[in-house]
Amino acid sequence: MLKETHLYREIHQQPGILARLLVDAQPAVTGLAEEVKRRQIRHVVIAARGTSDNAGRYAQYLLGAQNRLVVTLSTPSLFTLYHQPPDLSGTLVLGISQSGQSPDIVAVLAEGRRQGALTAAITNIPASPLAAQADFVVDLQAGEERSVAATKTYTAQLAAIAMLSSTLSGDPALAAALTQIPQAVEEILHTTSLEGIVQRFRYMRTCVVIGRGYNYATAFELALKMKELTYTFAEPYSSADFLHGPLALVEHGFPAFVIAPSGAVLPEIRRFIQTLASRNAEVVVFSDDADTLAMGEVSVPLPAGIPEWLSPITAIVPGQLFAMHLAYIRRYHPDRPRGLQKVTETR
Amino acid sequence: MLKETHLYREIHQQPGILARLLVDAQPAVTGLAEEVKRRQIRHVVIAARGTSDNAGRYAQYLLGAQNRLVVTLSTPSLFTLYHQPPDLSGTLVLGISQSGQSPDIVAVLAEGRRQGALTAAITNIPASPLAAQADFVVDLQAGEERSVAATKTYTAQLAAIAMLSSTLSGDPALAAALTQIPQAVEEILHTTSLEGIVQRFRYMRTCVVIGRGYNYATAFELALKMKELTYTFAEPYSSADFLHGPLALVEHGFPAFVIAPSGAVLPEIRRFIQTLASRNAEVVVFSDDADTLAMGEVSVPLPAGIPEWLSPITAIVPGQLFAMHLAYIRRYHPDRPRGLQKVTETR
Repeated sequence: MLKETHLYREIHQQPGILARLLVDAQPAVTGLAEEVKRRQIRHVVIAARGTSDNAGRYAQYLLGAQNRLVVTLSTPSLFTLYHQPPDLSGTLVLGISQSGQSPDIVAVLAEGRRQGALTAAITNIPASPLAAQADFVVDLQAGEERSVAATKTYTAQLAAIAMLSSTLSGDPALAAALTQIPQAVEEILHTTSLEGIVQRFRYMRTCVVIGRGYNYATAFELALKMKELTYTFAEPYSSADFLHGPLALVEHGFPAFVIAPSGAVLPEIRRFIQTLASRNAEVVVFSDDADTLAMGEVSVPLPAGIPEWLSPITAIVPGQLFAMHLAYIRRYHPDRPRGLQKVTETR
Repeated sequence: MLKETHLYREIHQQPGILARLLVDAQPAVTGLAEEVKRRQIRHVVIAARGTSDNAGRYAQYLLGAQNRLVVTLSTPSLFTLYHQPPDLSGTLVLGISQSGQSPDIVAVLAEGRRQGALTAAITNIPASPLAAQADFVVDLQAGEERSVAATKTYTAQLAAIAMLSSTLSGDPALAAALTQIPQAVEEILHTTSLEGIVQRFRYMRTCVVIGRGYNYATAFELALKMKELTYTFAEPYSSADFLHGPLALVEHGFPAFVIAPSGAVLPEIRRFIQTLASRNAEVVVFSDDADTLAMGEVSVPLPAGIPEWLSPITAIVPGQLFAMHLAYIRRYHPDRPRGLQKVTETR
């Protein structure tokens, strides 16, 4: 039974985890934000892999837009294989990892500490090697994640990043907006019905997932869930990058999942959907905007009233459900993707 | 006839273009390097799309390893759609673009200039809008690129970046190593024979392309050529990222192209090939190392004696030839990928 899988349960634990995180993680986030300001830090270097790296992508846009920080997704091989790390002095080195175990991610933080940079970890395991290298630890408190495919720790990581950004900005309107997220995720879980829709995609072997700006992260994370859970060859793209070459892939019926919430990016995304539609692609639209939903061959509604900067936390949830249901009708076990273990250790 | 296509000609022009670039671009590169040192710049922000973005990936590793610079691949939407650019003061903002035309890339440099950052452009069109925003322009002088799929401008971009890195380092051994590159590319063009090998891949619909460190860029660029020219669904990965989830895709006969030149990354890449082989993947190895070549079901030799930091310039050339020949036997026109134009303008 699908409802008895860890994946199903963990997806449905998300509203409670997010509500608790917004309260319990605030002291650690505030401490980190104050130290960032005290040191007048302007550059952030993020170390992460897999799902956590997608949370890092969100941080790259959000901390840039709301706090003018230049955010770099780090290159761990410079630390672990070449032993020629860059100069991290004056930066915040931020590790994001569910397990806090992967040696390459730990190595980036350890080098940051050695160079005197400010270090922080966002992790579900505060007793992990990663946390041991961090001046500040944001504990996700999401409970053990037993499904191999990460869901609840991803949305918790996004929320922790949103808390950090809103705290750094000092804008109480941003903090207030965050409080509506647990309820919005709850609403998605109650109202989204994808069991029927996924049948259409039973034999889909390849697809692209498109997002831009804040939801570039959502495109990467939905593509990763599709790969891990359904073995679909799903490649993520920003709408702009896709036009610079990969557009050649599009033939009649080519499936493209497009993350299209309301906001600054939407007009650009709508033009992109038109480009795909004019080439007879099969466009699956995730949006809260009725006109945009109507542009898709298939449409997946998102909750209304969520500001764009927070939409990645809600927009991934129907994507998690989509991948879960598609895996289930393909008779794959949602908790145990072939060839994977929960903790991946890379160097 | 394949030999009469622009793509074939432009691939074969590369040795001459590289030899000229190493001489003619040195004054501009030296001027830029001196200004980077004078301003004590420690952070670089790169703006690029498509093939040029892959050259940016190379710069991220090379400038990090050889000059301790923290290099960020920029997020143009923060500039063009959100109108909330990060704080670029004290950085080098580097635009890389064949045409120098795409408005989003120009916008990043213009904002850098407005904020007082040092700006530079690596472009094939020194009269372009991008060059107009740059304090220093490195002119690739590659001649008009008429094939839609970029080849000669990509290797020229890599060489320009290698020149910048070696000049910044002040190490004459690095500059000396660079001078052997044109001859090495010439050797590849004379000795590589892929017409027979590509038949095996005639019906391949999907694949992954793996590289790490300096050759992470090569994985992205080979995957992009495969998409543009052969419409193969080719996704690039670092070997480490691939283990964090996408490994679930691997089934018997799954095609994986692995860029595996000698150097610091090779032991890790060899372990990765073993992981793939133990799952009965079809591994295609690009290497100069005989033992590593022997690990592949199919092997593509690279020239011996090229240091790892320069291997991306040579390693992509057999990849260009592979994509060209595969496109040709599939009866696609190498010069005119469907749905693409030479200059893509995104915002």
